[in-house]
Amino acid sequence: MSSKLPAVGTTIFTVMSKMAADFKAINLGQGFPDFEPDPKLVELVTQAMKTGHNQYPYMPGDQVLRSNISKKVETLYGHRYDENTEVTVTSGATEALMATIIAVVNPGDEVIVLEPCYDSYVPAIRLAGGIPVFVPLTPPDQENNTYRVDWDRVGEAITPKTRLMMLNFPHNPTGITLKSEDLDALETIVNNTEVLLLADEVYEHIVFDAKPFLSLCTRPALAARTFLISSFGKTYHTTGWKMGYCCAPANLTTELRKVHQFMVFTVSSPMQVALGIYMADASTYLTLPSFYQEKHDFLYEGLKQTRFKPIRSQGTFFLLADYSAISKEKELDFAKWLTQEKKVTLIPVSAFYRSPEEDASNHNLVRFCFAKKEETLEQALSVLKHL
Amino acid sequence: MSSKLPAVGTTIFTVMSKMAADFKAINLGQGFPDFEPDPKLVELVTQAMKTGHNQYPYMPGDQVLRSNISKKVETLYGHRYDENTEVTVTSGATEALMATIIAVVNPGDEVIVLEPCYDSYVPAIRLAGGIPVFVPLTPPDQENNTYRVDWDRVGEAITPKTRLMMLNFPHNPTGITLKSEDLDALETIVNNTEVLLLADEVYEHIVFDAKPFLSLCTRPALAARTFLISSFGKTYHTTGWKMGYCCAPANLTTELRKVHQFMVFTVSSPMQVALGIYMADASTYLTLPSFYQEKHDFLYEGLKQTRFKPIRSQGTFFLLADYSAISKEKELDFAKWLTQEKKVTLIPVSAFYRSPEEDASNHNLVRFCFAKKEETLEQALSVLKHL
Ligand SMILES: CSCCC(=O)C(=O)O
Ligand SMILES: CSCCC(=O)C(=O)O
Repeated sequence: MSSKLPAVGTTIFTVMSKMAADFKAINLGQGFPDFEPDPKLVELVTQAMKTGHNQYPYMPGDQVLRSNISKKVETLYGHRYDENTEVTVTSGATEALMATIIAVVNPGDEVIVLEPCYDSYVPAIRLAGGIPVFVPLTPPDQENNTYRVDWDRVGEAITPKTRLMMLNFPHNPTGITLKSEDLDALETIVNNTEVLLLADEVYEHIVFDAKPFLSLCTRPALAARTFLISSFGKTYHTTGWKMGYCCAPANLTTELRKVHQFMVFTVSSPMQVALGIYMADASTYLTLPSFYQEKHDFLYEGLKQTRFKPIRSQGTFFLLADYSAISKEKELDFAKWLTQEKKVTLIPVSAFYRSPEEDASNHNLVRFCFAKKEETLEQALSVLKHL
Repeated sequence: MSSKLPAVGTTIFTVMSKMAADFKAINLGQGFPDFEPDPKLVELVTQAMKTGHNQYPYMPGDQVLRSNISKKVETLYGHRYDENTEVTVTSGATEALMATIIAVVNPGDEVIVLEPCYDSYVPAIRLAGGIPVFVPLTPPDQENNTYRVDWDRVGEAITPKTRLMMLNFPHNPTGITLKSEDLDALETIVNNTEVLLLADEVYEHIVFDAKPFLSLCTRPALAARTFLISSFGKTYHTTGWKMGYCCAPANLTTELRKVHQFMVFTVSSPMQVALGIYMADASTYLTLPSFYQEKHDFLYEGLKQTRFKPIRSQGTFFLLADYSAISKEKELDFAKWLTQEKKVTLIPVSAFYRSPEEDASNHNLVRFCFAKKEETLEQALSVLKHL
């Protein structure tokens, strides 16, 4: 059996979560909360199932849900998407990503990817016959303990074959967000090109230090060429419900839906109805930054008491930490050892690079997920401080 | 904005369901029940949500559910799939279809499709860069009021480039099933080839006239090259939950999962847990043939009292009927007129042919969905008998 993805194995998140379960380790790897969604939301799903929302919903998504997504985006970011022609409910952000890529990338098209990047991007691009073009993020240095986008290098990567640029902010795994100057630079770069943008903004509501989140759609010139993708799983502690959405100009949405309708056809009816009602109350997402800031700070401060060197995160469920004072092992080896011997599971940052083989430079970095109960973080820290 | 699927519009099922809603027509078009799932199943989903099943489940699917799928298939069809390496839970049969095609079809590969066929097949094949090769079903004639597969023509369609054959029995829209002789012929044809099979068996539990269903996996030689796809939506009156699965030999499953994990990552956790428990009781699906036979017969007999000429169905939610005694209009025009003027919605069979333009031969056939309450079927018949 020949393979179209010979280099691809099982995703690192599944590998590490399975290992965590097998070794009964504290799982700070895969990005999901270890606490429950609001019982009100669960009750709304139950009510939806009991009131006849169990058959195919309208293909682009439930009317109320699309309308409330449109209102939320307009209120927060000032850009109005038409709920009928520009908002599509998807089976999580993952499906929105794959459907977008399959819809717009032709064989031989180039797609710009900032590295490190989320692990589904490159296989999705390859399945569409596209060619990933990697631009590395500038790593933290003495002066600046944070990653940065080098927009000059991004600009240089654009060729007449560039079809799409993948942008993921707040960024997984580095936790960086974009500033107004970044959006300026991006606008300048794509101006006078045909390059489309995919904005993976699943952590839009999880941003720290009281900063407003700068969605790509805050800039009309960017919004006009952007597939804006978000996730209810990350926002409402329901990663297992597989609910997300994509907002895009009508001509882009038309192409997305052609693929979406044959990829999953439509998305869970009772969950859509429930989320449509639930998200009408803005406090359901406006409370998230402070909720997660506390967890971030707790883990960050805790790690400073260990031999890990943590990097502050500006958003997401994640922060990175350097473990070189503890071990010089390669990242995957270190992560496996930590799970097996110390019962704490993290994600090796090498998993976010194009392929383990090509990751010649070992950064000695691991990713921590702090979307966990304080007691879980405490338990992990009590182990890690002895390393 | 150039399109990768220029010929594709919105799926006919969405178009006709929206029209039915707009014109308040009785909807016998899209294939979904107008009755509710078992309250026990709904309660199991609620329990799953209340007991912590809201985060990412294991990527290939919930353990209990995969195990019970494996047991069901072995009991009914005598073929054992390993629950760990050969069973994958998918976001409905639609995702299983798309993921299989994207996983195995390379640009330039040929894929054999029996025509008429379900509308997602050809776009999925084209998105993978494959070339659909159409083999028409033999239409009903004087002697035999049923469609048949002409296996000689299927055999002739195989070339060294043939990668995959799409087989969908019970067949949508014609309602035909395969007999033992058909499986013999298929075995002979694919023997000594590398052709893979996709068996879309979403109506496996909806077969009539007390005949056992002959799944492709009943033949070991076929099972070894088959992606076997089914749907919980069709079986448990929950088409809106988007739950299905794919069973395939381990080497094929490995390739399927590589795509599945980046297409949707995984499938609704609470629904998986609920279905895993629910399907352990075989009566939940063994009662379906008689339940649907009644509906089929009610509609079939009713249509005989009209100027439609119905064709008996051997399985599925559907039967076809000739309307040439009522109108000589093209199928889509007739279906639209019937919705707008008579408030009954059906599906034009032309939608199951490669493209409306190429459907030069107008068959004057429409598809009825009888997965409806008896009163719904009665209401529709009371209108149709006046045509
Ligand atoms: C879809 S599993 C991965 C979850 C996630 O976003 C992460 O851990 O990075
Ligand atoms: C996925 S919508 C179509 C439902 C169906 O199987 C049909 O009507 O043929």
